[in-house]
Amino acid sequence: MAAAVAASSGAADVEKGAAADTTSNNNVVDGGEGVVGGVVRRWRRQDLLEKAVSALRVAAWAFSLLAFLVMAANDHGDWRQFEHYQEYRYVVAIGVLAFIYTTLQLVRHGVRLTGGQDLQPKVALLVDFAGDQVTAYLLMSAVSAAIPITNRMREGADNVFTDSSAASISMAFFAFVCLALSALLSGFKLAKQTYI
Amino acid sequence: MAAAVAASSGAADVEKGAAADTTSNNNVVDGGEGVVGGVVRRWRRQDLLEKAVSALRVAAWAFSLLAFLVMAANDHGDWRQFEHYQEYRYVVAIGVLAFIYTTLQLVRHGVRLTGGQDLQPKVALLVDFAGDQVTAYLLMSAVSAAIPITNRMREGADNVFTDSSAASISMAFFAFVCLALSALLSGFKLAKQTYI
Repeated sequence: MAAAVAASSGAADVEKGAAADTTSNNNVVDGGEGVVGGVVRRWRRQDLLEKAVSALRVAAWAFSLLAFLVMAANDHGDWRQFEHYQEYRYVVAIGVLAFIYTTLQLVRHGVRLTGGQDLQPKVALLVDFAGDQVTAYLLMSAVSAAIPITNRMREGADNVFTDSSAASISMAFFAFVCLALSALLSGFKLAKQTYI
Repeated sequence: MAAAVAASSGAADVEKGAAADTTSNNNVVDGGEGVVGGVVRRWRRQDLLEKAVSALRVAAWAFSLLAFLVMAANDHGDWRQFEHYQEYRYVVAIGVLAFIYTTLQLVRHGVRLTGGQDLQPKVALLVDFAGDQVTAYLLMSAVSAAIPITNRMREGADNVFTDSSAASISMAFFAFVCLALSALLSGFKLAKQTYI
């Protein structure tokens, strides 16, 4: 009888254990769904981030191409040549640099999409962020350098030369805006990846 | 006999369960120490981040004060007055703005240290980051605008006026470097605080 009681109490313990197992399994399942949901949401958000950064880089690529082409074609003889002014040469130089940088980034992105080899994830994020941020500062610098001289020229003469300069400066400014936003998003991704 | 066997197997199960409990408890304790260690390390790192940002803001405050004071005192009669040139007026304006911004930030930090009321944590981080980043872009813009005209003046005449302008521009550039780094760290803190 005592043995039977012990056995039944043992069985009860086992049952209790099984019940505990079930609840803990339920917990795991609930937690699992929550985690899976979170991961899926995060993937979607990262995908959106990825797309936004790509779109901003494409826009920056187009704007920087226009900026340096318009300025480099700004040659109307006499004093109306862009290469006489260091500010305008600076805009061309930074425009070319931004164009090369965004082209390389887009090529890298294309290679990654077609399954090619990319840099290590952390290094890639760091390169993305540092490149975007530095190029944004350089574009802001070029735009600011070229504005005062154009302003002064337009006080004296408003012609096709000053108009082209203004157009090129505007394009460089739009490229700056795109790269500044891209740097913001890249910085966000970088900070998320370093698990501190 | 069968009951006894069942009882003993039940007891064995219970013992096994107890053993499993012990190991799981050990795991919890280990995990707890790891978590506590991680939290402590994180606090230390955040404290270091906090101090670095404060130091950078103090440096930016001093540099922007010097930048606009040196430029505003740059008045040597005739054509050698800063207010004749829009670039130099721009440097003074942005220097004053950066000075006011960093002063307000330091006052806010002082109020927080003495237990006063601060903005909500997320809003505070957002204000920190946006303020630093925008002020850094503005300083970069002012520096870039003032460099070409100073360069041109120095080709003709190298005197106390151009030297003062160059000194002011250098101070503004140092203020830019400090605020750009501060924006980097603030952005990092902001991204860490949004739990995505």
